[in-house]
Amino acid sequence: MSVPFSVNRPCRLNEVSVWDQEADVIVVGFGAAGASAAIEAASAGVRVVLLEATSGNGGTSALSGGEIYLGGSGGTPVQREAGFNDDTEDLYRYLMMAGGPDADEAKVRLYAENSLDHYHWLVAQGVPYKNTFLPEKMLEPVTDDCLIWSGSEEAWPFAEEATPCPRGHAPQYQGWGGGRLLMDVLAARVSELGVEVHYDSRVMALVADDDGKVHGVVVRSDGRLRFVRASKGVILCAGGFVMNREMVRSHAPQLMHNENPIGTPGDDGSGIQLGISVGGAAIHMDEAFVSLPFYAPESLVKGIFVNERGQRFINEDSYHGRIGYHILRQGGNRVFLLADNATFERPAEFTRIDIAAVGETWDEVEQELGMPEGTLAASVAFFNRHAAEGRDPLFHKAAKWLKPLNEPPFVALDCRFDYAFFPHFTFGGLDTLPTGQVLTARRELVAGLYAAGRTSCGLPRWGGGYSSGMSLADATFFGRQAGRHAATQG
Amino acid sequence: MSVPFSVNRPCRLNEVSVWDQEADVIVVGFGAAGASAAIEAASAGVRVVLLEATSGNGGTSALSGGEIYLGGSGGTPVQREAGFNDDTEDLYRYLMMAGGPDADEAKVRLYAENSLDHYHWLVAQGVPYKNTFLPEKMLEPVTDDCLIWSGSEEAWPFAEEATPCPRGHAPQYQGWGGGRLLMDVLAARVSELGVEVHYDSRVMALVADDDGKVHGVVVRSDGRLRFVRASKGVILCAGGFVMNREMVRSHAPQLMHNENPIGTPGDDGSGIQLGISVGGAAIHMDEAFVSLPFYAPESLVKGIFVNERGQRFINEDSYHGRIGYHILRQGGNRVFLLADNATFERPAEFTRIDIAAVGETWDEVEQELGMPEGTLAASVAFFNRHAAEGRDPLFHKAAKWLKPLNEPPFVALDCRFDYAFFPHFTFGGLDTLPTGQVLTARRELVAGLYAAGRTSCGLPRWGGGYSSGMSLADATFFGRQAGRHAATQG
Repeated sequence: MSVPFSVNRPCRLNEVSVWDQEADVIVVGFGAAGASAAIEAASAGVRVVLLEATSGNGGTSALSGGEIYLGGSGGTPVQREAGFNDDTEDLYRYLMMAGGPDADEAKVRLYAENSLDHYHWLVAQGVPYKNTFLPEKMLEPVTDDCLIWSGSEEAWPFAEEATPCPRGHAPQYQGWGGGRLLMDVLAARVSELGVEVHYDSRVMALVADDDGKVHGVVVRSDGRLRFVRASKGVILCAGGFVMNREMVRSHAPQLMHNENPIGTPGDDGSGIQLGISVGGAAIHMDEAFVSLPFYAPESLVKGIFVNERGQRFINEDSYHGRIGYHILRQGGNRVFLLADNATFERPAEFTRIDIAAVGETWDEVEQELGMPEGTLAASVAFFNRHAAEGRDPLFHKAAKWLKPLNEPPFVALDCRFDYAFFPHFTFGGLDTLPTGQVLTARRELVAGLYAAGRTSCGLPRWGGGYSSGMSLADATFFGRQAGRHAATQG
Repeated sequence: MSVPFSVNRPCRLNEVSVWDQEADVIVVGFGAAGASAAIEAASAGVRVVLLEATSGNGGTSALSGGEIYLGGSGGTPVQREAGFNDDTEDLYRYLMMAGGPDADEAKVRLYAENSLDHYHWLVAQGVPYKNTFLPEKMLEPVTDDCLIWSGSEEAWPFAEEATPCPRGHAPQYQGWGGGRLLMDVLAARVSELGVEVHYDSRVMALVADDDGKVHGVVVRSDGRLRFVRASKGVILCAGGFVMNREMVRSHAPQLMHNENPIGTPGDDGSGIQLGISVGGAAIHMDEAFVSLPFYAPESLVKGIFVNERGQRFINEDSYHGRIGYHILRQGGNRVFLLADNATFERPAEFTRIDIAAVGETWDEVEQELGMPEGTLAASVAFFNRHAAEGRDPLFHKAAKWLKPLNEPPFVALDCRFDYAFFPHFTFGGLDTLPTGQVLTARRELVAGLYAAGRTSCGLPRWGGGYSSGMSLADATFFGRQAGRHAATQG
């Protein structure tokens, strides 16, 4: 070779003199998407090789709470036990709204109709779920309980279009971090099914023929380059790009001023770049989950957010990621959460939400923040007047969260994007069919290539609609589709 | 060939048995960028072939007003005649702000230092400029005058960082549409210099070797496929992607609800896709110019914009494209421009800005629009109170535009994105060096490949900062850099 291998340029098939290994399906990346793809392909009886760049499995999935967004078909056993009957059409409508202006209707439809089956599949793999429901607003259970409200289901405008139902299913695991448990279960299945796993194996390039069909990969393993053939398909499940700050700057520069990306070093965009190198289209690369995890304490949901001009901009009972999305759309850097003595509780220390100002009147708070007279105080007065009547005519916050903020002392909490804790990760990735097959910009197939998880652009593709559990739902469900489809090929 | 040629996949060099034609430099696309690239390459004495997909030259450049953003080095003759001394550092700082969170510092620096030379180059090509200045706020001159304020130079926050100076230079042409004149001049030069131009010649694929270096193109010309070699480089100047609504949906879905893209059918994204097919990275694909051309009449700048909650959101003396950018970031579809009897003039008919409500009091207007009491009216009252003192504490509109809106009758103009005239085009494209050389996602060079104009991501890359003339400035100046650099190659 005259130039080294690159994820940005495929190795030509005729450059491969000998295949070091032959497989039917190659899965790249051992997070939840890769594990699910490998399980399904191996279950179909084909030879699967799973290549993981690091020394262990889990990827970013293992860092998560392990929540999966599930429901429809009348509800999972957990939802039914909690008294919810989750209609498939409600799940469909919610996911269509959550997908934003370019929601992927085909994926949403397939997922809504098969989400309950997916729950049973997860249970069959060994993922434990306790049949319990926690009705409070929270990030994820700290106990081993299962079901929570993990999105904006009860909030305007979602509740207008889709009957609200809680759908965040956390594995039975004490404390935060059920994602590790989820991955342990899936990894055990991968092992049982005889998938050949290679750790410390970084894919350097795809191998493609002159028609653009993908035939395998070039992988650096144990310090040497190996050519591995995939007779049926290569499935890219190598994560997103949030840890590649150069890519973040080029696609989602609004994220550059916060230092809390959620990811592993593997989320370096190489999976997406591999797909692009053979004609795959990367879409919605600017979109991201950007959260301000200001609840719990649940009582802060009764507070109101204002921008640096004292203007309110969101119903505060929305999902914290929807609030983060709107915070980034306010001109100016300063954003405050206002509470009174009755609603204030100190946010969790990790949020770095500090107190910006305190006063005996809202005028005092306004002044202390250096805002012009009649801005913040007027917004609070307007809110209070209607809250007292159980109404929020501007943002339609639900009545249960409406309480006039009229008990001094009053407090403004500092929620600046460049200071507070705003965990974030990217949604942009390869455009795929529901089968996981990668598409070009003209929506033609890239033969032999699949993608799933955050290497693809899936159900989560709009910051204004994301809900906890959507990314793992997408990764596991569409990872499975890719594994099954690839197993049936050529 | 077993599969047809595709812009998404390069033709391999070893598939080319015979070159139908040999050139030094191939330029793809005959708009302002392609013409400028061809002129410079031909002036350097190399053989240039220019391939244009349609039957005539001009592209989207010819549809424009022909304005070019020029200045620095003490000012162009036009600026000096009008009494402005345009410091290079002011131009630099303005363009850095205009470039937004990922402004391309290297391009901005090169352009700021050489913009005056670029003016002289344009004049040397034959572009006529009249030494006149029109101080009013306008879209572009309807007379044959030259210099206008074509951005947000005098508006906050730009004026705080960079001494304001008008920099929009329109060619001497009576009426709108000076872009056609600009293109006629450049096309005449292309012809004089002996550039070989082929119309009705669509590039179907790039030709690349196994190391990824670009060697030429496959072009469909007169109904047959031809292989054209470029010994020094291929320069992609094939426009943006705003006319490819599938691509718009995948990258900038916020634009889908308006039917006024600015472009020709050639802006189908094929130039960008060609670059991606050989490893080029497309960046900032979500960014766009989105204008609401509500002035002239200039007096409407004294009005105020409010969103559907009655909240003000921008200093109205900003450039109309910056206002369009902020309109799209307001939750909800309804946006209004408020004026009183003293400031109201009917907007141009083509803007489709209709009257939404009229009242003798602002309370009446608020009510007629169905807004809750104390929203719109409170915003106007707040604005009026400070405007009377010559201040705008929230958005810092300049004093000359501040006038209390207190003379009935009062009017709300309907500026809905899905109804009014919001011309728009995309900024996203191939990442390039200031030389025009195309870069991969790792910012490695794609050998033999250049891009300019809206096929690249250049000076204009943030909707919040665009100014009229920046796109043609970028297309002509960096088109020239690409032509010159390519001419010196291998």
